[in-house]
Amino acid sequence: MALIVQKYGGSSVADADGIKRVAKRIVDARRAGNDVVVAVSAMGDTTDELLDLAAEVAPIPAPRELDMLLSSGERISMALVAMAIHSMGFEARSFTGSQAGMITDAHHGAARIVDVTPIRLREALDEGAIVIVAGFQGFNRDTRDITTLGRGGSDTTAVALAAALDADVCEIYSDVDGIYTADPRVIPKAHKLDVISSEEMLELAANGAKVLYIRAVEYARRHGVIIHARSTFSSAEGTLVIDEKARRALSDLFPQLQGEHMEEPVVAGVATDHSQAKITVIGVPDVTGKAAEIFKIVARSGANVDMIVQNISAAATGRTDISFTLPKEEASLALRALAAEQADVGFENLIHDDQIGKLSVVGAGMRTNSGVSATLFEALSVAGVNIEMISTSEIRISVVLRGDDLDEAARAVHTAFGLDGEIDAAVYAGTGR
Amino acid sequence: MALIVQKYGGSSVADADGIKRVAKRIVDARRAGNDVVVAVSAMGDTTDELLDLAAEVAPIPAPRELDMLLSSGERISMALVAMAIHSMGFEARSFTGSQAGMITDAHHGAARIVDVTPIRLREALDEGAIVIVAGFQGFNRDTRDITTLGRGGSDTTAVALAAALDADVCEIYSDVDGIYTADPRVIPKAHKLDVISSEEMLELAANGAKVLYIRAVEYARRHGVIIHARSTFSSAEGTLVIDEKARRALSDLFPQLQGEHMEEPVVAGVATDHSQAKITVIGVPDVTGKAAEIFKIVARSGANVDMIVQNISAAATGRTDISFTLPKEEASLALRALAAEQADVGFENLIHDDQIGKLSVVGAGMRTNSGVSATLFEALSVAGVNIEMISTSEIRISVVLRGDDLDEAARAVHTAFGLDGEIDAAVYAGTGR
Repeated sequence: MALIVQKYGGSSVADADGIKRVAKRIVDARRAGNDVVVAVSAMGDTTDELLDLAAEVAPIPAPRELDMLLSSGERISMALVAMAIHSMGFEARSFTGSQAGMITDAHHGAARIVDVTPIRLREALDEGAIVIVAGFQGFNRDTRDITTLGRGGSDTTAVALAAALDADVCEIYSDVDGIYTADPRVIPKAHKLDVISSEEMLELAANGAKVLYIRAVEYARRHGVIIHARSTFSSAEGTLVIDEKARRALSDLFPQLQGEHMEEPVVAGVATDHSQAKITVIGVPDVTGKAAEIFKIVARSGANVDMIVQNISAAATGRTDISFTLPKEEASLALRALAAEQADVGFENLIHDDQIGKLSVVGAGMRTNSGVSATLFEALSVAGVNIEMISTSEIRISVVLRGDDLDEAARAVHTAFGLDGEIDAAVYAGTGR
Repeated sequence: MALIVQKYGGSSVADADGIKRVAKRIVDARRAGNDVVVAVSAMGDTTDELLDLAAEVAPIPAPRELDMLLSSGERISMALVAMAIHSMGFEARSFTGSQAGMITDAHHGAARIVDVTPIRLREALDEGAIVIVAGFQGFNRDTRDITTLGRGGSDTTAVALAAALDADVCEIYSDVDGIYTADPRVIPKAHKLDVISSEEMLELAANGAKVLYIRAVEYARRHGVIIHARSTFSSAEGTLVIDEKARRALSDLFPQLQGEHMEEPVVAGVATDHSQAKITVIGVPDVTGKAAEIFKIVARSGANVDMIVQNISAAATGRTDISFTLPKEEASLALRALAAEQADVGFENLIHDDQIGKLSVVGAGMRTNSGVSATLFEALSVAGVNIEMISTSEIRISVVLRGDDLDEAARAVHTAFGLDGEIDAAVYAGTGR
C-alpha cells in the first residue's frame, strides 16, 4: 500500500461537478489500495472574489485579517470534497492548515513553512480515512494566527505534506497533462516529457514555464519528494519530476522511458518568456563601484533584476552602458528610482524597452555536453534572429531577443535540439476550462 | 469604561456597505470609551448558498464536514469587519469560535456550549483591540473538530461571550428596533417596549415572536446577561431584556420607563403564530395509558407537540378524541407514524387541520393579577372569534383559533389589554433589507 498525496487546483474544484469529478479520482486512488492525502485550493475564482470584497471595505486590508479571510476559501472546497467522498461511501475528513500541523512563520500573505506536524492526519489515515487538507494556509505558533503561503501555496502545501508523511508520490493535478518540451501553444510539435529532473524543472519554471510553481519544486527537491504533474481531466500518466540522480538511474534502467525523442537528452526543454522588460543605463562612468551603486538603487525600488550585461568600456570617453532585464510591471518604479539619482550616479541617459523576449534552453545534460551554445546560436542565426543579451547557468542558456522574434526562434531551437515530437501537442492548449 | 458585547446578523453585514456601516457603529462604541467585543453572522445569504452547494455534491452531507463548510461563512464576515475597523484607524482582531474558546459538545449542526474560555479575547482587549468573533461556531475538545450551534447560534455566541466576559450589556442588532407589544405588520398600533423581562421574552419567542432566539434569551436569563435588542439602522434605544426581579426594581425606581402605555403592565405583549397545525385522533379507547401510547408514537416521529386537549369521554361509546398542535412541517411524519399503528392503538380516525392560528398573551403580571383570561375571552367573544383550544403557563395564555381569524383577534386583544400605542409602528416592518 502506497501513500499518495494529491493536489487539486481551483479550476479542478470550480463547481459541484468539478468537486464530484475530483472526489471520484480520489476514491479511485483509494480503491486501488492506497492511503490518500489531498490538498485542495479554493474553488475557481473564490480567492479573487474575497480579495475584491476586502478592497471594498478597506483600501489596504490588515494582513492578519486578509489571511483570515482568504483561508475561508479552502475550508469551503475541502469540506465539499470530503462530503462528496463521504456520499460515495468512503470515510473522509477535512483539516484546516492549523489542524494539519502546517506551521509557518508569521509573515502574513507570504508565510514560509517552518515545520509540519501532521499528527491528526496520521491518526485519520490509521483509522482508514481519506484525508483532505486546506491548501495555501498555515498557522503561526507564536501569534497563534492563521497565515497564508502566497502564490503557489497549495502546490507547496501538497509537497510539504508529502515530505512530512514520507509519501511515495505527490500528484499535482491541473488542466495540463504534464511538462512539455516547450509551450505547445507556441510550438505545436512540443511533446510531453515522461520524466524531468527537479533542477531542470526549476530552471524551466524560473524562465517562463507555468505548470508548476518554483517554490513547490524547490521544496520537493530539498526533501526528496517525487512530483507527478498530471491532468484532472485525463487518466494518462503525466510527468515525473525527480532529482537528477534518480532521473539518471531511471534512464539507465529504462531507456524506453525517454522514448524515441530523447536518445540524446542534452536539452530537456525550451522556455519562452514575454514578461520581461529591458532597461539600459547609458554613459555610466567606468569607475569601480558604479554598477553596485546602480543595482542598489534598483533593488531599493523593489525590482527583481534577472539578466545583466555590461558593455566593454569605450576608452575614449571612459564611460560604458549597462543593460538589465526585470519583470515589465517593475520597470517604471526602477526607472523612477534611477532617474531620481541620475546626478549622483553620473550616468547620461535611461532607455526602456518592453518589446523583448527571453528564450531559454534547459538541460542537465549540458553539464557534460559541450556544443549546446553553439547549436543554439547556429539555430538562431539560421532563423535570422538577433541576440541582444546572453546569460547562462550550469544547466541553462538564456538569450534576450526582440519579442516579435521569440516564437519563431523557439520553434527553430526546439527543432535544432531534436525535441520535435511526431504529433502536434494541440491537446495541451485545448483542455483548459 | 464598560464592556459591551454586540451581535450583528447576516442582513446587517450583507455587503460591503453594510460591513462599513457596522464597522462605524462598533468604532462609535469604542470612541465612547467602551471595550467592545462583537459576534458576527455570515454575510446575507452565504449560509444558504453553502447549504445549496453541499446539497449539490452530497445528498446527505456528513455533519462534521457540513460544520467545517458552514463555519467558513463567519470567517469571511468577521475578517471583513475587522479590516474595515482597521482602515478607520482602530485596532481590531478577529477570532474563530475555537480561537475565542467557545467549547461545545460534539453534536454537529446543533452543538451546545459547554464552556467558554475567552483567554485570547481578554488578551486582545487588554492590548486595546476591538475583538471580532465568529458567531454560530464552536469547537469540541475531544474530537478537536469545528462545530456549529444551529439556529440562532450567533445570538447565543454573543450572549455566551457576554456571560464569560462579565459584559455590562449584550447588544443584539437586527433590522428591527426592539421588542414590540405585538408584530406591527399585524397590529399597526403595537408599540416598542423599553424593557421586558426575560421570562416574558421567552414566552413571546416560544409563541411566535421572531426578534430574539429563545436559546439566547434562555442563556442570558441563566447567566444574568442583560440583552439590549436594537436596530443596526437607527441610533434609537431598543428594548432591554432583563430578569424579572431587575425589571420590577427598575419599574419601581423609574416609573417613566414604562411610558404612559403601561400603567398596568399585566400583559407585556401579544404573540401570533401561523406555523402550527392541529391533529385530532378520533375515537380513542378511553383506557389508561392510551394518551401516553399516542404521544410516544408522535415523539418517535420526531415531532414537537405544543398544545394538547383531550375531550371529555362520551360515556355511551367509551371513546374520546385527543387533539394536539405541532409545527406544520412535522405533521405529515406524525400522521404517517400514527396511521401505521392505528390497529394497535385502536383509534378510529385521524383529522389533519393546517388552517389554525395561535394567539398568546404574555405578562409577568399575570402571576398577581386575576381576570386576564376573562379579559382575553371577552375580547375574542366581542370580536366573534371562536376558541378551539386553550393552554396556559404561569405568565401566558394561548388559544388556538381559525387561522383566518388570527390577525383580527390579535388586534382586538391588543386593544383590550390597553397595549395600543398612540402612533402606528409602521417603521417596524419597513426597515428590513
